[in-house]
Amino acid sequence: MISNKSRTIQAACFLSMLFFSISTFAQQPAEFVNPLIGTSNYGATFPGPIAPRGMASISPFNVAGRQNPLEKDSQWLSNPYVNENTFLTGFSQVNLSGVGCPDLGVIMLMPTTGAVETNHLKYGSTYSKEVAKTAYYSVDLDKYNVKGEFTASKRVGVSRFTFPKGQSNILLNLGLGLTNEEGAMVKVVSSTEIEGMRSVGSFCYNSPEDAYPVYFVAKFSRPADHFGVWKNTTKYNGVEAQWMGYNGKTRIMKNTIKTVVGDSIGTYFSYNFDKKETVEVKIGISYVSIENARENLEKETGYKSFDDVYKETFNEWNEELSKILVEGGSYQDKVIFYTALYHTLIHPNTLNDLNGEYPKIKRTRIGRTYDTRYTVFSLWDTYRNMHPLTSLVYPKQQSDMIKSMLEMYDENGWLPKWELNSTETFTMVGDPASIVIVDACLKGIQDFDIYKAYHAMLKSADQIEENPLRPGLKEYIQKGYLSTNYKGSVSTTEEYNTSDYAISLLAKALGEKEDFKRFSKRSLSYQKLYDKDLKLLRPRTPDGKWYEPFDPNAGANFQENVGFIEGNAWQYAFMVPHDIRGLMKLMGGDKVFSEQLQKVFDTKQFDMANEPDIAYPYLFNYVKGEEWKSQEMVKKLVREYFKNEPKGLPGNDDTGTMSAWLVYSMMGIYPISPGDPIYTITTPMFDKVTIKLDSRYYKKDNIVIEREVNTDGKIREIQINGKPLNSFFISHDSFVNATTLKVIQN
Amino acid sequence: MISNKSRTIQAACFLSMLFFSISTFAQQPAEFVNPLIGTSNYGATFPGPIAPRGMASISPFNVAGRQNPLEKDSQWLSNPYVNENTFLTGFSQVNLSGVGCPDLGVIMLMPTTGAVETNHLKYGSTYSKEVAKTAYYSVDLDKYNVKGEFTASKRVGVSRFTFPKGQSNILLNLGLGLTNEEGAMVKVVSSTEIEGMRSVGSFCYNSPEDAYPVYFVAKFSRPADHFGVWKNTTKYNGVEAQWMGYNGKTRIMKNTIKTVVGDSIGTYFSYNFDKKETVEVKIGISYVSIENARENLEKETGYKSFDDVYKETFNEWNEELSKILVEGGSYQDKVIFYTALYHTLIHPNTLNDLNGEYPKIKRTRIGRTYDTRYTVFSLWDTYRNMHPLTSLVYPKQQSDMIKSMLEMYDENGWLPKWELNSTETFTMVGDPASIVIVDACLKGIQDFDIYKAYHAMLKSADQIEENPLRPGLKEYIQKGYLSTNYKGSVSTTEEYNTSDYAISLLAKALGEKEDFKRFSKRSLSYQKLYDKDLKLLRPRTPDGKWYEPFDPNAGANFQENVGFIEGNAWQYAFMVPHDIRGLMKLMGGDKVFSEQLQKVFDTKQFDMANEPDIAYPYLFNYVKGEEWKSQEMVKKLVREYFKNEPKGLPGNDDTGTMSAWLVYSMMGIYPISPGDPIYTITTPMFDKVTIKLDSRYYKKDNIVIEREVNTDGKIREIQINGKPLNSFFISHDSFVNATTLKVIQN
Repeated sequence: MISNKSRTIQAACFLSMLFFSISTFAQQPAEFVNPLIGTSNYGATFPGPIAPRGMASISPFNVAGRQNPLEKDSQWLSNPYVNENTFLTGFSQVNLSGVGCPDLGVIMLMPTTGAVETNHLKYGSTYSKEVAKTAYYSVDLDKYNVKGEFTASKRVGVSRFTFPKGQSNILLNLGLGLTNEEGAMVKVVSSTEIEGMRSVGSFCYNSPEDAYPVYFVAKFSRPADHFGVWKNTTKYNGVEAQWMGYNGKTRIMKNTIKTVVGDSIGTYFSYNFDKKETVEVKIGISYVSIENARENLEKETGYKSFDDVYKETFNEWNEELSKILVEGGSYQDKVIFYTALYHTLIHPNTLNDLNGEYPKIKRTRIGRTYDTRYTVFSLWDTYRNMHPLTSLVYPKQQSDMIKSMLEMYDENGWLPKWELNSTETFTMVGDPASIVIVDACLKGIQDFDIYKAYHAMLKSADQIEENPLRPGLKEYIQKGYLSTNYKGSVSTTEEYNTSDYAISLLAKALGEKEDFKRFSKRSLSYQKLYDKDLKLLRPRTPDGKWYEPFDPNAGANFQENVGFIEGNAWQYAFMVPHDIRGLMKLMGGDKVFSEQLQKVFDTKQFDMANEPDIAYPYLFNYVKGEEWKSQEMVKKLVREYFKNEPKGLPGNDDTGTMSAWLVYSMMGIYPISPGDPIYTITTPMFDKVTIKLDSRYYKKDNIVIEREVNTDGKIREIQINGKPLNSFFISHDSFVNATTLKVIQN
Repeated sequence: MISNKSRTIQAACFLSMLFFSISTFAQQPAEFVNPLIGTSNYGATFPGPIAPRGMASISPFNVAGRQNPLEKDSQWLSNPYVNENTFLTGFSQVNLSGVGCPDLGVIMLMPTTGAVETNHLKYGSTYSKEVAKTAYYSVDLDKYNVKGEFTASKRVGVSRFTFPKGQSNILLNLGLGLTNEEGAMVKVVSSTEIEGMRSVGSFCYNSPEDAYPVYFVAKFSRPADHFGVWKNTTKYNGVEAQWMGYNGKTRIMKNTIKTVVGDSIGTYFSYNFDKKETVEVKIGISYVSIENARENLEKETGYKSFDDVYKETFNEWNEELSKILVEGGSYQDKVIFYTALYHTLIHPNTLNDLNGEYPKIKRTRIGRTYDTRYTVFSLWDTYRNMHPLTSLVYPKQQSDMIKSMLEMYDENGWLPKWELNSTETFTMVGDPASIVIVDACLKGIQDFDIYKAYHAMLKSADQIEENPLRPGLKEYIQKGYLSTNYKGSVSTTEEYNTSDYAISLLAKALGEKEDFKRFSKRSLSYQKLYDKDLKLLRPRTPDGKWYEPFDPNAGANFQENVGFIEGNAWQYAFMVPHDIRGLMKLMGGDKVFSEQLQKVFDTKQFDMANEPDIAYPYLFNYVKGEEWKSQEMVKKLVREYFKNEPKGLPGNDDTGTMSAWLVYSMMGIYPISPGDPIYTITTPMFDKVTIKLDSRYYKKDNIVIEREVNTDGKIREIQINGKPLNSFFISHDSFVNATTLKVIQN
């Protein structure tokens, strides 16, 4: 909530003073959120305001300029804000949270004073008095003595600038951005309105042909005294250049209402104030059209003040976060818990405009939804715990997400893999959509076309030619694994196995016996990559031989590593969540399994910051008598990696996956085998956790997890509705139909 | 009408076969037009279709590619088409005719076949079977076996392509263009429609900040089987470039409906034809918005076929051209006459959309007109004869042009100088607007706010500081001339004198006696630059001394020359049309004057291709007994410089100024002193010329000029209404109120 730097700390009671409607006696969940968590240590979150699953968001932008230790163009940097940086060049109006590649971070608003300067390296400023809270961010720009405050509704960012006396300017820079795409269009409609678009995309440097526009309309609470558009022009070569006195120079076009396009353009609105004054700027966003951006702005925030919007969005957040109420933990634990829950409620986010329109995949048509069309599906990450969490706590959202995924299948012929604003980026490996859908379906979220979903899964699991989701499928089906002909052959085999397992579960549920058998069998084929000597999975060459030379330790820290994607053999050795007992058998029994698992941690091969091994701490629960190791390990990792500070995430949040791990881990349950509707149990980190259940999907109003702490010791007994459970696993059904899950420690 | 190259000649009777409504017995004026005249010898006209004073026009574009002898980027080239060139890369949809700087020549349509190729240097083609007629142009593209036909309404270009069997493509290239501006936006709305804009401007490499958008909507008669957008990307440098496999490469974005912006983008519509097929493309233009472009398209051509549009525009031309009927000349004379008249009816052209909207000067607001808002005022050229011709033959148009000029004054604070699509380019010298207005006013076109016009003239004539129209005004008023401190000091002094004379005439008419005196006096100050020894005007340095060394012959062919703009001392010596008798006196009488004038021609200092001296041939009319020299000289120049062939203009048409010279010269009258409502008379080149007069401005229905040819000799007598005129001059009033002006030769 408060920056870890020497910036002025604002009293936490500020909120309760503002909003009398919120109880002044107890802190509300939304008051515990600290959006600065994850803004350092490559967490890739941003500290600015956003509504739950909002399309618009505002982030301070401080990754341009060599003054900053982490400069966007000097390395692979995927976030608009880094807490250690000090030189701020604007406030971007659309942003991604916890992604691994630079994109969006555009439509850059910036207040300045004095003469208009359009070069961000010159107009940038240091800043202080940073305040980041749910739906609110504020900061002082030292160079200008200007205070900026920011909030947002779902599709509109709202900024309030407090200017000193004199000439003040609000710049809207469409050149500067986090994305590597360029190109924008802008038109000043009047002295209170700007419309335009900015091109973004090429996420992870893929699919540049899918780069796409984000449209906007900006409305100002005060008419500009004068305004203009600037354009940085490229230098012309050739014979004609000698006649061009203006060659390569920035153009300033004053008070013009013409459309201007270019790779680096912007507008300024200037004011001559004779005293301290404030200006509010609302920026409506759309991925369909300028008209829709205008309608989003007008219908969501038309007559509302900055404070109105803030209050509404705060309340919306509070309602969402209140779906889980925690009691009995420390203040810091509540902060990291609710901030994590907040981070799981950012992506997938809303793509459709208020009128229901959204661009269909590949932007060949405009679609219309009556619910929510979701976007930003980083499924390789989120299938593991984020979607299972959504199914439990926000099942209507999960249902709409699945419907969105099925719409994508209709539009594109394929389920999504890494979908971003209706472009399929095909980032990462595996075929995770089926796991997400099966997991939700088997948990009772079934208000979608299950047969269509089933057929979509079968298509990606079976279509051998021209299959963008499962490269190497032919070899996989023939041999049971991908050979080193394919990048990340071991990792991908494991991912396909996990997906096949999910499909087998749905096949079983649908009574498709042949499919059930077939996919059950396919899901175990990773075993062919098991190297008995190493007790690890190991790549095989196309001729079936083990890949040589093989270093199980190679490939940490995202180095290229044959056989593995973003990890090494240790980090992938246990990533068969659906067949841990089979793996145990392969290894020679639970004792060897446990020793080998322990070795991952002891040799520091465990990576808390990436997905392949994040379920490992829970795997001791499969070893009878060693469940305490999971309990201790989870608690240790929570304490070590998750803190109420900017570097309080272990690494990239991966659109809420790290955060979902924390939410589950602090509640004492974990979806140990995605697709399989079961949880495994460790010690909750609160005395009481009440999960409100959505009556449209669940019978009970809520389920309570209680911790009976005698000491800080191992779990002695787990009770369900007061009766011993006699297991460290519980089915989703038993869980959501119970009243209480009580964990009693020694 | 037919190219001078070895292309197939189409029968002239083609038209009469097509249009039964047009008399098949006699050729109509519009049938004599050969739009290829002026497409060589730097005439800068284009051969494609345009409606009278149309906003849209289509020109074949053959100035890109090194195959062409005249390549647009290798020199200062101001036209989209050069008759000698052979490599065609498209058909531009907005074009300027007879201007001296490159601009417009954009929104490039190009039919191709086979796989889509987006590089114009690769998809360009040689061509044959070129036909250019009023409102119609057609050509065969050799490489593709595709025939292109083109016509236009006022705001819509219509193209018809006949494709062979197989894959055919229609490219809309928004990168390639004649203008030096770059930047475009495009969006495929559906498989039959494209919308977008292209940035143009920086005319004569001036005022880049005034570069502005031209909006368009293109509708196709057949839905594309598939379509796409391409974008040529600039090469990215820096650390990130290593991750960009696509760095600097062309992107093809298939079937997308997203907005794309960039410096070099385009769209293609592709068809798979199983037999020879035609596709029509209508492109609506607007300088206000895409919506207006769409409305222009729909309301002007919505349900009309190519042939419908052609017929309507042909008829519109025919009606306009029929305002002057010539009889008794040769076919070739009629061709050069009507083509010249046609060329005077291109600029100034329509700026406003069908709904009346147009961008006000500097594009700070949108205006609305109920008449016509005209644009493209190349006044330094056109004040001399083009506007006087318009006042005589098309007075309503001249009235609307003056109203447009006064609107510009309202919008901008200044009358126009060289206005182009609501940008003031400030090209050339002098302050010609007042001459144009006074000339029309004194000819009886007075349905505008004359006092506003008068005040506007006084402002530019009197405001010493920050006067964009008359640089150096302070010195001019103090000394009577500009010194060599100012570029083109002699030329500009003469221009200011001429303008001041026009103002004095209006002052007199308005009863403003003081102004009359003041400006009468100012109009003669050029005399201070008269060098008795040289009998020429000569630059003075700031201390009043003659500029040394001085070569009266220097400065031909547009070379930089101290004291003069686009000319030398000979070409400016007589450019005081309002004070020829005063000049005569200075020179020492009519004999010396005549000798000196003759010397201009004898020493080949006369330049038919530029404006300063184009009235010279008529000046012998001031010398009693030597009027025959004017008669002979005019006839000689007409025969030497004006021909029915691409190089049939003496040089740049200067938005119709050369053509207006020809129209007047062939009619036997000339507006010898712009501003002054008088004509001087030479021998008409037709037996009979009937000028229809507009009853809203003139009392008589028409005025007939007759030639009574006994021999090819000198004029013996001039009769007005059958009575001897006894002068080679006639006032506009006497002329338009007469029935017949008869010229009888010896």
